[in-house]
Amino acid sequence: VWGNCPSSNASMEEVNGVPKLMDLLDEPVPGVGTYEDFNTIDWVREKSKDRDRHREITSKSKESTWALVNSVCDAFSGWLLMLLIGLMSGALAGGIDISAHWMTDLKEGVCLNGFWFNHEHCCWTSNETTFQERDKCPQWKSWAELIIGTTEGPFAYIMNYLMYVCWALLFSFLAVTLVRAFAPYACGSGIPEIKTILSGFIIRGYLGKWTLVIKTITLVLAVSSGLSLGKEGPLVHVACCCGNILCHLFTKYRKNEAKRREVLSAAAAVGVSVAFGAPIGGVLFSLEEVSYYFPLKTLWRSFFAALVAAFTLRSINPFGNSRLVLFYVEFHTPWHLLELVPFILLGIFGGIWGAFFIRANIAWCRRRKTTWLGHYPVLEVLVVTAVTAVVAFPNSYTRTSTSELISELFNDCGLLDSSKLCNYDNANVTKSSNELPDRPAGNDVYTAMWQLSLALVFKMLITVVTFGMKVPSGLFIPSMAVGAIAGRLLGIGMEQLAYYHHDWVIFRGWCSPGADCITPGLYAMVGAAACLGGVTRMTVSLVVIMFELTGGLEYIVPLMAAAMTSKWVADAIGREGIYEAHIRLNGYPFLEAKEEFSHKTLAMDVMRPRRSDPPLSVLTQDGMTVEDVETMITDTTYSGFPVVVSHESQRLVGFVLRRDLTISIDNARQRQDGIVSTSRVFFTEYTPPQPPNSPPPLKLRGIMDLSPFTVTDHTAMDIVVDIFRKLGLRQCLITHNGRLLGIITKKDILKHVAQIANRDPDSILFN
Amino acid sequence: VWGNCPSSNASMEEVNGVPKLMDLLDEPVPGVGTYEDFNTIDWVREKSKDRDRHREITSKSKESTWALVNSVCDAFSGWLLMLLIGLMSGALAGGIDISAHWMTDLKEGVCLNGFWFNHEHCCWTSNETTFQERDKCPQWKSWAELIIGTTEGPFAYIMNYLMYVCWALLFSFLAVTLVRAFAPYACGSGIPEIKTILSGFIIRGYLGKWTLVIKTITLVLAVSSGLSLGKEGPLVHVACCCGNILCHLFTKYRKNEAKRREVLSAAAAVGVSVAFGAPIGGVLFSLEEVSYYFPLKTLWRSFFAALVAAFTLRSINPFGNSRLVLFYVEFHTPWHLLELVPFILLGIFGGIWGAFFIRANIAWCRRRKTTWLGHYPVLEVLVVTAVTAVVAFPNSYTRTSTSELISELFNDCGLLDSSKLCNYDNANVTKSSNELPDRPAGNDVYTAMWQLSLALVFKMLITVVTFGMKVPSGLFIPSMAVGAIAGRLLGIGMEQLAYYHHDWVIFRGWCSPGADCITPGLYAMVGAAACLGGVTRMTVSLVVIMFELTGGLEYIVPLMAAAMTSKWVADAIGREGIYEAHIRLNGYPFLEAKEEFSHKTLAMDVMRPRRSDPPLSVLTQDGMTVEDVETMITDTTYSGFPVVVSHESQRLVGFVLRRDLTISIDNARQRQDGIVSTSRVFFTEYTPPQPPNSPPPLKLRGIMDLSPFTVTDHTAMDIVVDIFRKLGLRQCLITHNGRLLGIITKKDILKHVAQIANRDPDSILFN
Repeated sequence: VWGNCPSSNASMEEVNGVPKLMDLLDEPVPGVGTYEDFNTIDWVREKSKDRDRHREITSKSKESTWALVNSVCDAFSGWLLMLLIGLMSGALAGGIDISAHWMTDLKEGVCLNGFWFNHEHCCWTSNETTFQERDKCPQWKSWAELIIGTTEGPFAYIMNYLMYVCWALLFSFLAVTLVRAFAPYACGSGIPEIKTILSGFIIRGYLGKWTLVIKTITLVLAVSSGLSLGKEGPLVHVACCCGNILCHLFTKYRKNEAKRREVLSAAAAVGVSVAFGAPIGGVLFSLEEVSYYFPLKTLWRSFFAALVAAFTLRSINPFGNSRLVLFYVEFHTPWHLLELVPFILLGIFGGIWGAFFIRANIAWCRRRKTTWLGHYPVLEVLVVTAVTAVVAFPNSYTRTSTSELISELFNDCGLLDSSKLCNYDNANVTKSSNELPDRPAGNDVYTAMWQLSLALVFKMLITVVTFGMKVPSGLFIPSMAVGAIAGRLLGIGMEQLAYYHHDWVIFRGWCSPGADCITPGLYAMVGAAACLGGVTRMTVSLVVIMFELTGGLEYIVPLMAAAMTSKWVADAIGREGIYEAHIRLNGYPFLEAKEEFSHKTLAMDVMRPRRSDPPLSVLTQDGMTVEDVETMITDTTYSGFPVVVSHESQRLVGFVLRRDLTISIDNARQRQDGIVSTSRVFFTEYTPPQPPNSPPPLKLRGIMDLSPFTVTDHTAMDIVVDIFRKLGLRQCLITHNGRLLGIITKKDILKHVAQIANRDPDSILFN
Repeated sequence: VWGNCPSSNASMEEVNGVPKLMDLLDEPVPGVGTYEDFNTIDWVREKSKDRDRHREITSKSKESTWALVNSVCDAFSGWLLMLLIGLMSGALAGGIDISAHWMTDLKEGVCLNGFWFNHEHCCWTSNETTFQERDKCPQWKSWAELIIGTTEGPFAYIMNYLMYVCWALLFSFLAVTLVRAFAPYACGSGIPEIKTILSGFIIRGYLGKWTLVIKTITLVLAVSSGLSLGKEGPLVHVACCCGNILCHLFTKYRKNEAKRREVLSAAAAVGVSVAFGAPIGGVLFSLEEVSYYFPLKTLWRSFFAALVAAFTLRSINPFGNSRLVLFYVEFHTPWHLLELVPFILLGIFGGIWGAFFIRANIAWCRRRKTTWLGHYPVLEVLVVTAVTAVVAFPNSYTRTSTSELISELFNDCGLLDSSKLCNYDNANVTKSSNELPDRPAGNDVYTAMWQLSLALVFKMLITVVTFGMKVPSGLFIPSMAVGAIAGRLLGIGMEQLAYYHHDWVIFRGWCSPGADCITPGLYAMVGAAACLGGVTRMTVSLVVIMFELTGGLEYIVPLMAAAMTSKWVADAIGREGIYEAHIRLNGYPFLEAKEEFSHKTLAMDVMRPRRSDPPLSVLTQDGMTVEDVETMITDTTYSGFPVVVSHESQRLVGFVLRRDLTISIDNARQRQDGIVSTSRVFFTEYTPPQPPNSPPPLKLRGIMDLSPFTVTDHTAMDIVVDIFRKLGLRQCLITHNGRLLGIITKKDILKHVAQIANRDPDSILFN
């Protein structure tokens, strides 16, 4: 299927309802200039349309005060929209956090003061507890306590176990059923699709209100069910839904696909901003990872929206600590240059795991697509939930929510910490000193290390089958958990090594006894960054998000070393990040902007028609009848046709879209007198006088793109790909010595790229 | 002068010395594919060249281990280069800081322990001083003390005054003389030129080693002379020089203008990173303000380089406080929502001042360009220095260096601060409390306010004439100083208002007596951001730089409110920032990427030849002799010529550059047998057999661009401008129905833009 690129000029003359240079009969026909579902937009046309609109408002604004006010309103509508998106996304994220927290605790017990309190909140409101025992209070009853009246003994344990699994199954069943029944687009993380949409693809309903409602509800359910998934990726989808829905309030954004995508880019930044409490990181995430067209204006606005959202979320205060960030960490010890070695090791681990995860996950998803597995999504979700819950309950590190686990792993052990991971031998520590030296680990630390190792293996395996199921599922938190566990284990190992062998050459000088030289929490953080980097191949945004968590430039270098190593290692094993891999799996037409097109082919090798094919179907500017055109439309499936001066000369005049052509001819047959099958079709500026008895001519210059993009057949494909990416083209015509020779569409390029990479070119499904 | 766009294909076949598809006679001719000074590069060709080089290395890497190592080295050379730039720029910035600090103090006195100690360092090494009197120590002698033996009395004051002015004159005289004698490009801030260079312009020597050496030395001199200028802008220039010089170590970057510009973009980020100690802000500055082509790879690398530089600078520790940042601030009080009103007022002030400053400065610079003023640069510098020094000395706020002033203004008054600005009535304050309530101002505060008001007026006026003189001069610090003074004044005013009128409705509830509700230092910071924003129109990068100074997200909202207001207000008064204004003043061919082209014209309205002009000069692919071509070259001044099939058909074959054509013909005449004036020139793929007695033909297909960019005459100019910007073109050919009609160059577009804006189109000087 060929070209769909409509004319920027046609749009100028048609879409705004101001026909110029043309016959007055050519009034705008409804439907001309819109797109079908699962098609790619033409960025040039959309931007041109918006400039026309802007120009019109500016020129009108000089006429009256009202128009001036209107023009000022129009200029500020973008900012208002950003404010609204920030507020709405922040509020939704706060609601999701609070509900997920409550429902996660519901799996373990209930609050007697009111069932709507979560564990922490329940014990806060109770005044009987001391600071040390905040988690234990009489108002909070585990299910065993409530039902059989005791928390002791194997029976109570089994009771709690059973209730845990049952709640998990109930939540996940609800989640998958709601998704299937009301909004199939609400599943997954949504980021691959959002990337594709931002690059100019249309998936109607993907960012609609039903998706928003269902995704918000099922996200809470899925997270609460204890599945190995996070809410950070889906929050980006939720924020983009907010953005898309709020766009409908403003004509400027409702009617223009390019302008709307600017808003969606900002909304993606908002999503990450509320997910991690990292506004700058969010903006860079949008810039680096998801956006396709990111002008400076959008940068500024995204930043504003991300800040508004972060502050909205903070005023809701879902984490109960007035902190903006999801994981607040404060480290007290500087790191030593030699520690870069373990940090780089963590980077290598992250890279290998990331690449392994992507392969395994894609293989599993492909299996889901092609075998019987795909027919029983509810069953799949229930089985995975059951396995997760059954395996997770006995291990205290998998029983809690993953974000709590990460928080604990990032934490730098203080003297008062009651966590098992902080069970050090404090014999030699003077309580008054502010700095804690490295201490020998207690027994609980070794138990915790065993449990963490098991949790690591379990998380690594279960995440592979979880991501891609028919529930909302993010990947940030599980990846970070894997890395944080690995990092913490390495960190404790290093710490004990330094404590017991402080006379080794490598430790001499900076790890004398009594010095605090190794922070295991920092290792956990570096590990988390490495694994997240390996899976998503984020770089700057990853480091900045992590930087915003700690707030100090001090720890940027370790994070950077790990993120860099991880990306290089992962890239060496497999080029694609998880989102690109999923885009390819789904056959979306996404032209990767990061990768260089490195093959040396020319446009003539890629263009259609190929040498053995029949020649290109073209319209002539004045030689065809309505019937000829209609026959051509029914005989071919191309989305557009070039218009030439004559078949002999093949000199290009313009390009006309199949959709516009069909709509215009149908419209003319219905509304214009005397248009019959033998009427001649003219694309020329002036229609020659017709013989007396012939039917009136049909003038279609108005729907023709007078400025189709052309390149010569000798243009190197890397230049062609560059043009497609930078200008956002849908197709480009190929000429040789001024004669029209063929056409290259976005799909042709993607197929060519797939072929070069030894992949199936037919895996590209859409235009 | 028309087109200079060389062929991407020609470059493929020629520049790498691998002639393909061509006669073997076409060996690469030295000089083909290079640029002349003050010309615009062709991004498409340069990027294509680099891809070819990369392709070659990749394909070779499979052949031998050595080639593989080579290819890995090539891949990592970018990172190594970044490391080197970071180290070198960090070291240079440290050196500049230390020397400037020393020389600034030299104006006031000298250290007896060793003349190379600055005031602070001199008293540090002395053990006799207490913490409170760090500034006063016997080793440090003011000039009066040294020469006439006393610091008391009017005579000593006059002595000091005189020495201050003399040193200032000496420093500025040295600076301007050195600049004039050795490196005229070392003057100014350099940012306008760097913006132009990054957009693809060539100014040989602008980033050379002489510029680097002289700029570094004269920057120290200029800053020390006490002129109202900063070192932050010139540091960007210094970092870019480092980047450019280090590029010469790597063939990949030395030989490719596009790759080198990627490095320079990163170097600009490094410059800001070392100037403020704000690596993230630096990267965003490069992205937002100076860069033209900023791919994601560059983002990541800039970040790395910026970090390396920041840490290098910190390890040199020029500020003596182990801080990364130039102005370290810590505020203790949150701000109140009502305070947004004064913050927005500061924004309005910043916007108005920014716009006023730009107009006044440009008017002054234009006068310098056109009148006698420009002929006496040394005199001008000396006069301005004398005025500055004479006026500055009596006022303690202008006598110190501007960055110390800003530091003091940003500072939140503690109990121990000895600054006049912190002279509050501490009667009611319990010394033990950590939080300082709002207190009534003492007499010294009122004196300080008077002095600050005078300093404000003086800085506002003198900066206008200072920026643009023939010494290195940055604008960040003077702008920030103006804003900081205004902000601090407003802040103290608000504070006293709140103290004395805490029962007013607006203060009720948050400014009760004894509460610390207003932080004048924060007002100073917001004011600084507002003025800097008004002058440079930076937005995100400005806020992020300021955020990195305080390190807390808390104060981003006030900064953002002020920066936003300031930009809007300034944009309403005059569209251009100071850098764009200077670019335009100098007539550089810079196509602004931020501004939308909003006029509704078509390509045919802008293209040359105009309707009344003689037709386009074209070459035919097989119908011309060497003499014909040479006549055409001498008769015209165009930089390039389209090649057509024949004059009748005007069907486009390719485009050939004047420079390449001249070089090739000269080369052929010298080295190829039998090429005479009557030899026929062929641009075709195959040369037809020549009649027996005719001279051998000259085949020039190799130097022809087989894929020139073309658009139709009906293409809207906004689309054409978009194509030029995004692809980095130099010229584009215009066709109508497949026939060549004309050409549009970057200069034509800039002239057209100037014309629309009612400016002189001939102000665009270069191609």
